[in-house]
Amino acid sequence: MKVTVSRKAHFNAAHRLYRKDWSMEKNDEVFGKCNNPNYHGHNYELIASVTGEIDQETGFVIDVKVLKDIIKTEVEDAFDHKNLNLDVTEFKDLNPTAENIAVVVYNKIKAKLKPSLDLEVTLYETPRNFVLYSGK
Amino acid sequence: MKVTVSRKAHFNAAHRLYRKDWSMEKNDEVFGKCNNPNYHGHNYELIASVTGEIDQETGFVIDVKVLKDIIKTEVEDAFDHKNLNLDVTEFKDLNPTAENIAVVVYNKIKAKLKPSLDLEVTLYETPRNFVLYSGK
Amino acid sequence: MKVTVSRKAHFNAAHRLYRKDWSMEKNDEVFGKCNNPNYHGHNYELIASVTGEIDQETGFVIDVKVLKDIIKTEVEDAFDHKNLNLDVTEFKDLNPTAENIAVVVYNKIKAKLKPSLDLEVTLYETPRNFVLYSGK
Amino acid sequence: MKVTVSRKAHFNAAHRLYRKDWSMEKNDEVFGKCNNPNYHGHNYELIASVTGEIDQETGFVIDVKVLKDIIKTEVEDAFDHKNLNLDVTEFKDLNPTAENIAVVVYNKIKAKLKPSLDLEVTLYETPRNFVLYSGK
Amino acid sequence: MKVTVSRKAHFNAAHRLYRKDWSMEKNDEVFGKCNNPNYHGHNYELIASVTGEIDQETGFVIDVKVLKDIIKTEVEDAFDHKNLNLDVTEFKDLNPTAENIAVVVYNKIKAKLKPSLDLEVTLYETPRNFVLYSGK
Amino acid sequence: MKVTVSRKAHFNAAHRLYRKDWSMEKNDEVFGKCNNPNYHGHNYELIASVTGEIDQETGFVIDVKVLKDIIKTEVEDAFDHKNLNLDVTEFKDLNPTAENIAVVVYNKIKAKLKPSLDLEVTLYETPRNFVLYSGK
Repeated sequence: MKVTVSRKAHFNAAHRLYRKDWSMEKNDEVFGKCNNPNYHGHNYELIASVTGEIDQETGFVIDVKVLKDIIKTEVEDAFDHKNLNLDVTEFKDLNPTAENIAVVVYNKIKAKLKPSLDLEVTLYETPRNFVLYSGK
Repeated sequence: MKVTVSRKAHFNAAHRLYRKDWSMEKNDEVFGKCNNPNYHGHNYELIASVTGEIDQETGFVIDVKVLKDIIKTEVEDAFDHKNLNLDVTEFKDLNPTAENIAVVVYNKIKAKLKPSLDLEVTLYETPRNFVLYSGK
Repeated sequence: MKVTVSRKAHFNAAHRLYRKDWSMEKNDEVFGKCNNPNYHGHNYELIASVTGEIDQETGFVIDVKVLKDIIKTEVEDAFDHKNLNLDVTEFKDLNPTAENIAVVVYNKIKAKLKPSLDLEVTLYETPRNFVLYSGK
Repeated sequence: MKVTVSRKAHFNAAHRLYRKDWSMEKNDEVFGKCNNPNYHGHNYELIASVTGEIDQETGFVIDVKVLKDIIKTEVEDAFDHKNLNLDVTEFKDLNPTAENIAVVVYNKIKAKLKPSLDLEVTLYETPRNFVLYSGK
Repeated sequence: MKVTVSRKAHFNAAHRLYRKDWSMEKNDEVFGKCNNPNYHGHNYELIASVTGEIDQETGFVIDVKVLKDIIKTEVEDAFDHKNLNLDVTEFKDLNPTAENIAVVVYNKIKAKLKPSLDLEVTLYETPRNFVLYSGK
Repeated sequence: MKVTVSRKAHFNAAHRLYRKDWSMEKNDEVFGKCNNPNYHGHNYELIASVTGEIDQETGFVIDVKVLKDIIKTEVEDAFDHKNLNLDVTEFKDLNPTAENIAVVVYNKIKAKLKPSLDLEVTLYETPRNFVLYSGK
């Protein structure tokens, strides 16, 4: 019996969408207000969803406290109250779109899970815009 | 790397669930209070979820502004503050159940997307009742 | 010790904002899309908040089941799946704006409460627009 | 055309996570605060999602009133305001983790649906922790 | 310039509504399903709202981290994953209705605030039932 | 009959909490992670609540479209996708704490309302932290 266990978390960060190798005009055209050179920011809400067999002894797929701790170490400590472009290594040369942040978060959490567990990451950039990545 | 990008939107509309070819009694039996001949209404909340490869240049699957504009033109301008039965062509002969509205919305948005992009439509008729259609 | 006890409820209804004694042009100018002659509708969310002394015997200001039943009889049974303009007596000659609905709801619930209890009514017409009336 | 119809419901219950065949120390180690011998509790929020073909006559996959009634009889009447460990037969010898509750709920609702309909159960133990089971 | 600063928190607990000096019949009559001798439970959501002058030096009425820590020590550590009737001193002889819990929480937090600050406590027993106490 | 009409809006912005006349050490001590020199950010959710008499002709206290437009011009156009410290005049020498932002927003909206209308501003910095200012 495969069950998916989800845990919500959140972090607040500044970011700017742009490519260093494009002109200001081209960046404005493609990224609009998100290309503000002084940055803007979001309350990112994250859902990490782990799928696997129920352990018949404990009744858990994964102990939510374990999942909560992985999210804290891998995501909250690394991203919270940070400027994604300037303070987070993974985005030094990667545009911090919601799509790319979700892939980075997926890779960081997946590396800490037992290989038998599947992962899906949902990332809300705002309550109206969100993305989902499941490693496919 | 396939990511799903979702955008929330909303529209307010009146509707009535019934079949013109059925008696009032049969409509009452099947559709209950939803068969009020004077109509009732809802705040419909819509989530359009688009799945595709991340564009390596922009970091976007689809620019959310583009998706927002498609939803505005295809759904909000067409359905908002309308009587679905009387004002919206698609429901002249189609019962505006949440299921049928989702299919109509899916078809309208899908036609405006690049063929390589998959679409899933979630439609909340109330915060407690909602439907999902992905073209399958 | 005065405590406020709140209960949420909801009803779905159609309505139209307009004055019978105004021209279609004037109604369009003042009420815009809300003047659709075919009606539109909403999921109204209601919060009834009752303030009074805690009964030292029960620890209740008001039994929430009693409040829930008053809301059901006075509001849900009367308004749910109705056309406010056509089906609800109170709005035969009263424009069913959120403000006026809140006042009508307040008066109906207040009449069923013990006079020592104060009432405040919050009415969400949409998740983004809401009104509050407390009889003042 | 397959559409998924979802209905939200809720129940409030006490529970304790532990194994009778383990020592208090081992239960504390594995289940932490959830092993409180005096129980703790949750407002469980449930989403039952039913997938099937749209009935071309009614426009329904399933009448939401029917689904609502199944949830009331099978889940709310059985679990609401109960102690899951002591009052609910299914958990006499099954640890009431969110995972196990979801499987029990799935089995109870699935047995009342037409075999052609698929079911997915999402169960929120808290707004931050939730699980999903779809019978696979 | 007086501003109100609010912080949300939460705790999960079991409780039973009843009076030891009443018969089971009378408790059932007054408290209904909440009188289950085996207890039931809730995810309580708490909002502590502190009103005072803005400190012109910091721009804070109260540092939210300070408020968060007071809530943790006074409420979360004391109530979370507990049986309110059996594990929490304040409810040994006080019926743990939402009203009474709000008064207890108010008194515990107020004692830790500077006397110049006003406090209001909102306590959600469920997303549909909540109470508010402000010491009046 | 006085009714309060509320409208929700939102803007995304970067900010940093600090005083230019304090050392980095003192700013770290008082503002902690919020003193990141590279900024962080939030999805601010705003509720503007306007209280006044119901106009007996229209049934409105204020046309919500008018309120929506004032919020757009005064707040969204001025703050959305901006760095509050660098891009917004009002915060050149004022620490952009939630408290101070609420006062600035209050003053900007109040100046555009008829003097007979009262205003209250609620500003969510995160879903867990929010402030309220009503000009008192």
